[in-house]
Amino acid sequence: MTTHDFDRETAVTPRPGERSAYDAHLPGSWKIGMGINGGLLLSMTARALAAELGGGSDGHPDPLAVSAHYLSTAAAGPATFRTEALRRGRTVSHGAAALLQTDEDGRPVERLRALATYGDLDGQTDDVRTAAEPPRLPPPGECVGTDAAPPEFLAESPMLGRIDLRLDPECVGWLVGTPSGKGEMRGWFRLPENRDPDPLLLLTVVDVLPPVTFDLGIPGWAPTLELTAHVRAKPAPGLLRVVHRTRNFAGGHLEEDAEVWDAEGRLVAQSRQLARVRLRDAVDVDVAVAG
Amino acid sequence: MTTHDFDRETAVTPRPGERSAYDAHLPGSWKIGMGINGGLLLSMTARALAAELGGGSDGHPDPLAVSAHYLSTAAAGPATFRTEALRRGRTVSHGAAALLQTDEDGRPVERLRALATYGDLDGQTDDVRTAAEPPRLPPPGECVGTDAAPPEFLAESPMLGRIDLRLDPECVGWLVGTPSGKGEMRGWFRLPENRDPDPLLLLTVVDVLPPVTFDLGIPGWAPTLELTAHVRAKPAPGLLRVVHRTRNFAGGHLEEDAEVWDAEGRLVAQSRQLARVRLRDAVDVDVAVAG
Repeated sequence: MTTHDFDRETAVTPRPGERSAYDAHLPGSWKIGMGINGGLLLSMTARALAAELGGGSDGHPDPLAVSAHYLSTAAAGPATFRTEALRRGRTVSHGAAALLQTDEDGRPVERLRALATYGDLDGQTDDVRTAAEPPRLPPPGECVGTDAAPPEFLAESPMLGRIDLRLDPECVGWLVGTPSGKGEMRGWFRLPENRDPDPLLLLTVVDVLPPVTFDLGIPGWAPTLELTAHVRAKPAPGLLRVVHRTRNFAGGHLEEDAEVWDAEGRLVAQSRQLARVRLRDAVDVDVAVAG
Repeated sequence: MTTHDFDRETAVTPRPGERSAYDAHLPGSWKIGMGINGGLLLSMTARALAAELGGGSDGHPDPLAVSAHYLSTAAAGPATFRTEALRRGRTVSHGAAALLQTDEDGRPVERLRALATYGDLDGQTDDVRTAAEPPRLPPPGECVGTDAAPPEFLAESPMLGRIDLRLDPECVGWLVGTPSGKGEMRGWFRLPENRDPDPLLLLTVVDVLPPVTFDLGIPGWAPTLELTAHVRAKPAPGLLRVVHRTRNFAGGHLEEDAEVWDAEGRLVAQSRQLARVRLRDAVDVDVAVAG
């Protein structure tokens, strides 16, 4: 049996003799800008919560809703997840989780705190009434891969080597100084090792596109303050379509809404995050905008 | 100085001698269906968190993002909020809160757990770039008040007496058996005592409209599993415009997105919740649908 890079890198290991504690290593390969990708941290958090809430014949293995508040910038290296079951119910269970690292002085520092509602996605009804439509995208071969990013940008964004992302050419004007101003990013996603998507991976996918601020012509990173993801169905094997949109940049903050669609055209995940634009980081991103 | 009903009913009182514990009384006047309105619980939670995070000259008084996971149905009566400061930062602070009650056997039972990011809405920049537009509504006098609801429905929904809500006539077809099928509710909101809106009240307002499932022709209550609200600006005095939408009902769950606009046409709050449709409650609501 092959272990894919994604599963190896996001593994959490129950700590012997200590209940609800999990050892992990935050992978430097998922670094983007100054920190580790927030979606990947969400997937790792969800692994620890699945261990807490998913066991037994009456367990709830699947994340339905995960809300994370990001407290400080996570660094590559050792980390601990601590989980707590808040309520084990008949149809859903609720839990909390914390991601902790040790700072340079040996003190514990919290990276994120999360709340989650878990259930069983296989047990859901088939009744679907949706007004949502998948984004229209050119075929993957006509889209723009992450290898088109300038070398300086790639150098500080190892994460781009861990994903196979093909952006709609209409959304990459910012790469050559002509952002569309629409506040939208969309593209095809898969893992390069061709691992099939599952609910755990969807929690990463909701946060892998470039910030929609780039498409608004606003340079600088947009660190996430809060991100909540809903997993609405188990994804079919194959390519995922992802769209990120913002409607309201104001007061130095913006919301970023993500949708993930599976190969069968079903809306499998939705997320919204509140991000802060840090214009003092603009110099980092000017490289990309001028690229 | 007048204390408005809303402020009196949502008050939380620091418990003498016990740090980060607050006594409260969940008001039966905000009962809707089987429980207390989830938005009101969010406002009360935010009051406790403001006491935890907002104090001092470097405190952060305003909720920017609050995520609540609803664990069990809250009942009118005594309640305790417990808060925890997770991180006190320069521009934002993060906290957690739990709402607890005592069950019939005298055991503590948790109603909701919340995470929050607090900041200072007065200190934000004026730069606004928005594609969002306020909902178009007929004048309040041409809209449908909650007094139009059938008496049986009003009898089990005291909350409707606590709000002055005027729904767009296009969104109330479900009252006479002809739902639009669009999955949208919109209307004007104010408190009947004419208390001006503030960030705290916005957390209630994101959850005061009837479930959008009614407009889809799906009867039954839609209890909230998770609700995250973003407060984007301090609202101006005057009437609020509120819109709720869903795009995807699937697997027995739906997302409900809410926007709240102030009298100056600014988008002051956004929220998304994941709700579950409990069709076994349909008999309760048939009254309303057949009304």
